[in-house]
Amino acid sequence: MSDDAKRPAYDWPEGYTCAAAFTVDVDADVPYRWQHRDAMPPTLGQLEQRRFGPRQGLWRLVDLIEQNGIKGSFYVPGLVAESYPDLLPELRDRGHEIGLHGYFHEIVAESDDAEFARALDKSLALFERQTGKPPVGFRSPAWEMTRPMLARLKEVGLAYDSSLMGFDHPYEIDGVVEIPVQWLLDDAIYFKFVGGGNDNSPPVSPATVLESWRMEFDGLHRFGGLFMATVHDWISGRGQRIMMLERLIGHIAAVGSTWWATASEIADWHRQSPNLGRFQVDGDIPAAIGPRRTESA
Amino acid sequence: MSDDAKRPAYDWPEGYTCAAAFTVDVDADVPYRWQHRDAMPPTLGQLEQRRFGPRQGLWRLVDLIEQNGIKGSFYVPGLVAESYPDLLPELRDRGHEIGLHGYFHEIVAESDDAEFARALDKSLALFERQTGKPPVGFRSPAWEMTRPMLARLKEVGLAYDSSLMGFDHPYEIDGVVEIPVQWLLDDAIYFKFVGGGNDNSPPVSPATVLESWRMEFDGLHRFGGLFMATVHDWISGRGQRIMMLERLIGHIAAVGSTWWATASEIADWHRQSPNLGRFQVDGDIPAAIGPRRTESA
Amino acid sequence: MSDDAKRPAYDWPEGYTCAAAFTVDVDADVPYRWQHRDAMPPTLGQLEQRRFGPRQGLWRLVDLIEQNGIKGSFYVPGLVAESYPDLLPELRDRGHEIGLHGYFHEIVAESDDAEFARALDKSLALFERQTGKPPVGFRSPAWEMTRPMLARLKEVGLAYDSSLMGFDHPYEIDGVVEIPVQWLLDDAIYFKFVGGGNDNSPPVSPATVLESWRMEFDGLHRFGGLFMATVHDWISGRGQRIMMLERLIGHIAAVGSTWWATASEIADWHRQSPNLGRFQVDGDIPAAIGPRRTESA
Amino acid sequence: MSDDAKRPAYDWPEGYTCAAAFTVDVDADVPYRWQHRDAMPPTLGQLEQRRFGPRQGLWRLVDLIEQNGIKGSFYVPGLVAESYPDLLPELRDRGHEIGLHGYFHEIVAESDDAEFARALDKSLALFERQTGKPPVGFRSPAWEMTRPMLARLKEVGLAYDSSLMGFDHPYEIDGVVEIPVQWLLDDAIYFKFVGGGNDNSPPVSPATVLESWRMEFDGLHRFGGLFMATVHDWISGRGQRIMMLERLIGHIAAVGSTWWATASEIADWHRQSPNLGRFQVDGDIPAAIGPRRTESA
Repeated sequence: MSDDAKRPAYDWPEGYTCAAAFTVDVDADVPYRWQHRDAMPPTLGQLEQRRFGPRQGLWRLVDLIEQNGIKGSFYVPGLVAESYPDLLPELRDRGHEIGLHGYFHEIVAESDDAEFARALDKSLALFERQTGKPPVGFRSPAWEMTRPMLARLKEVGLAYDSSLMGFDHPYEIDGVVEIPVQWLLDDAIYFKFVGGGNDNSPPVSPATVLESWRMEFDGLHRFGGLFMATVHDWISGRGQRIMMLERLIGHIAAVGSTWWATASEIADWHRQSPNLGRFQVDGDIPAAIGPRRTESA
Repeated sequence: MSDDAKRPAYDWPEGYTCAAAFTVDVDADVPYRWQHRDAMPPTLGQLEQRRFGPRQGLWRLVDLIEQNGIKGSFYVPGLVAESYPDLLPELRDRGHEIGLHGYFHEIVAESDDAEFARALDKSLALFERQTGKPPVGFRSPAWEMTRPMLARLKEVGLAYDSSLMGFDHPYEIDGVVEIPVQWLLDDAIYFKFVGGGNDNSPPVSPATVLESWRMEFDGLHRFGGLFMATVHDWISGRGQRIMMLERLIGHIAAVGSTWWATASEIADWHRQSPNLGRFQVDGDIPAAIGPRRTESA
Repeated sequence: MSDDAKRPAYDWPEGYTCAAAFTVDVDADVPYRWQHRDAMPPTLGQLEQRRFGPRQGLWRLVDLIEQNGIKGSFYVPGLVAESYPDLLPELRDRGHEIGLHGYFHEIVAESDDAEFARALDKSLALFERQTGKPPVGFRSPAWEMTRPMLARLKEVGLAYDSSLMGFDHPYEIDGVVEIPVQWLLDDAIYFKFVGGGNDNSPPVSPATVLESWRMEFDGLHRFGGLFMATVHDWISGRGQRIMMLERLIGHIAAVGSTWWATASEIADWHRQSPNLGRFQVDGDIPAAIGPRRTESA
Repeated sequence: MSDDAKRPAYDWPEGYTCAAAFTVDVDADVPYRWQHRDAMPPTLGQLEQRRFGPRQGLWRLVDLIEQNGIKGSFYVPGLVAESYPDLLPELRDRGHEIGLHGYFHEIVAESDDAEFARALDKSLALFERQTGKPPVGFRSPAWEMTRPMLARLKEVGLAYDSSLMGFDHPYEIDGVVEIPVQWLLDDAIYFKFVGGGNDNSPPVSPATVLESWRMEFDGLHRFGGLFMATVHDWISGRGQRIMMLERLIGHIAAVGSTWWATASEIADWHRQSPNLGRFQVDGDIPAAIGPRRTESA
């Protein structure tokens, strides 16, 4: 048996064995526009494919979770909110959490800390203007973070980050509450397909993804973790994926004792619970091993 | 619940919940010849593999849908019609729709608007010569479009395009009726395999694709969309895929209340139905976000 | 219904609906040695992985088919026969067909017609020396052919080629009897995995491949084609794949009315049957479409 | 039937039909640090994802096998042991085997024999310091070996290597006992996913991997081989994979007559059994075929 003092279990609210969050990264065409930020191609294929999201897909996802009594967390790039000004207000009116997701879906490896800060400030102002109150959470585009980004989140007073995967339950990194994601529960890596000749990984069958996600839920239920599903408007709004998500939600209901909550509610819980301080790590980057030396010692 | 006024459902003809179209992109060896348009390699592998289509595969697909009382829409590059002069007449005689698909299966990103216009004119003339009447629909090779291409389709009087995926039911873009495709219902992305050392994505099991397509049909049936299957002569004419398509057709029949129609019939319906004007978008390319600026503001 | 006169069915021997052939490309480490023909790396990983074939895997495949009363066709690069001088004699003694497969598993695109001719002559002499009689069939490494290669096969008096896929039953190309292969019935594209950091396509589950191959058999049984399975000593000699192949053979037996034969026996049948001349094509390479012209006409 | 004298079966201890080993390559973030040994990126994504291993994943794997009465073999890079100084002692105290796995997870193709020797010496000293006794086995990072590496293992007195796959039961290469691995029983090739835009192979469903591994076990049980599972702390410590491994262990128990042992115990058996000397090969690298010559002979 493992040493409980060394490796404590995570405590969830009374009566719950584990938690689940339904989160949507509402990207629409913005990652494509970021990719082509120097010059847009004249072609319509990807734009139309991605705009299916705000037109149809997003609202099917919202309907689905509402029919199942679930509040979702929606991470929205600033440019999406700007392009669809009714989007944030409708999500707010329907009672869901709205979180930040960059302004132009800035990819961390192609950006810098100053650009991050500008995007954060601009998004915060826009969100407050559109919804009347500031968001409390941040999710990094493509799930990448740096220490200065974590520091900046603290400075502007955000309550949590949701971009890293160092535990499979909430923890703290550099003092920021982390509501962890994980790749295997992201829809895009299985379903995203944009054609154009360089895309050789066809969409996985939703029945296969369902099987994988159910099995992950079962494991997290056993170990008391957080089942953090991440889906995208233009990807999982397609018919077969709504069917899949409906079955997933049904499975979780059948197992029972799971706390469906927004990431914001989970961060609140973490802060007031005995878990605070038990799972603290820092974001130090270790030194480089050093250059390859092939001569003998 | 979603706002019905903001996001209306699509209306299908009396008695139908959704629609399905069986479309075939009859490419044979033409995309390979386009790829090697500067100089043909001396090798026979891909040519023979692809010529299986007009020799055997295409006619198994035709037989299959006829046995199930379905009329198909066949999109044929001009060079295929030229190389197999009996092909278009036989499809016409058997009552199927014939549509345009480029002359040399011109890939949009490797072509231009002038070449598109020439290919369109040349194909129209050839089709009319071979079948006695002009086609009414166009599907872009590799499913890519530009605004000038849409404009040109209107100029030559075509009734619809079938290359984009901005909704999962018919809509209008720049005033052209769009009968939408979608990647997940294309056979090539799952099954195409041509060897040669650079092809690392083996054919998916047809049972897996069947499961995925059935689930997409179920979703589209629920949401009242268009199930637009796209298959290829030399890919889905193989034995296992005919078996799969037969089961798919059987599933759709078992669910019921689905309108099997050609793309042309669906475009006609769209034009005369209350849907006209409800789902209009334009093909404006948004401005580029602007170059990366990494210095602080 | 399709026009029977235009597209006749293939005739199999009395009482059989379709045919099946179990063929093994006995490559061992020779494709790896071809790939590194200029200089061999000092590493042992791939050599050992591939030598599992002649040590263990090949003989499990031989045992399996013998236990099921099937004669196989084994295509062996000259260098494998040279390195394992007991291999061809044992296969001959156990009653299986032995065919040519290049000398160094020469990849067509990296070789030329003169090298092909030399490899053919050298292999023929070696095979005759080791087994006392010349082989009658050829299978190209990596399944690629040119017109001069076909011509050369005729010149040296071989009875058939088994490298192309222009029909899914025997046919003739440039007057050479072709016993066709097809990618979807090749084990390597699903199972081959050699590590080294560039191999991102993990082995497919054998249950999935079994499902795909069964469904292809069912289709070929319906259409009267040839089920041509191709496996490799070092790939399908692994435990799970022997289990899979056993189940596949069981499925074919359960369906019944299938002629299990060697490729050589099928070529003999083709030559004496009413099929001869019905499915003739030539290997002309079509002219190049011409260079891209983007200025208007 | 195969010739038993030529190809003898492997003998296992009295009462056992085959053997199984549960091995863990405890890599944590070290392969990532090796990859970026010249300069570490400022990003936290991969570091956090991989540190999930020593924080949570590893101990779930240990708990799992202990609950099933199995002793595992844990191969640990020196830098992991250095970074987590309690790790080796805890594994030792819980009765598991600890083996070497490079110091910096040195990739053979990017390293040399001198660097290998240094890493081996440094790891041996560290392991002895941390656990009070020297390890007896070595597994190469990424499963690659050279003759000088094998020779060096003998020189320093290690009892076995576990990096090659020339048989699917123990054998000897250059006089070193080899406890063979195989790619299809490695978890990383199915499950590893690190994002960053270049990772296009999504994690396989654990149900699919389970099916594949069960079928491989069934084959090895039939042929009397060694079922050598290799998993990683940060990959298979995730919930769904623990569920999968639990079912795998259950399947093996249900079939029965399988010897669960550490690699060290298996190497001991090999050395004292009648198998010794029956499966000897040498690590000679064959000569290069020679440069491509395309002029006729």
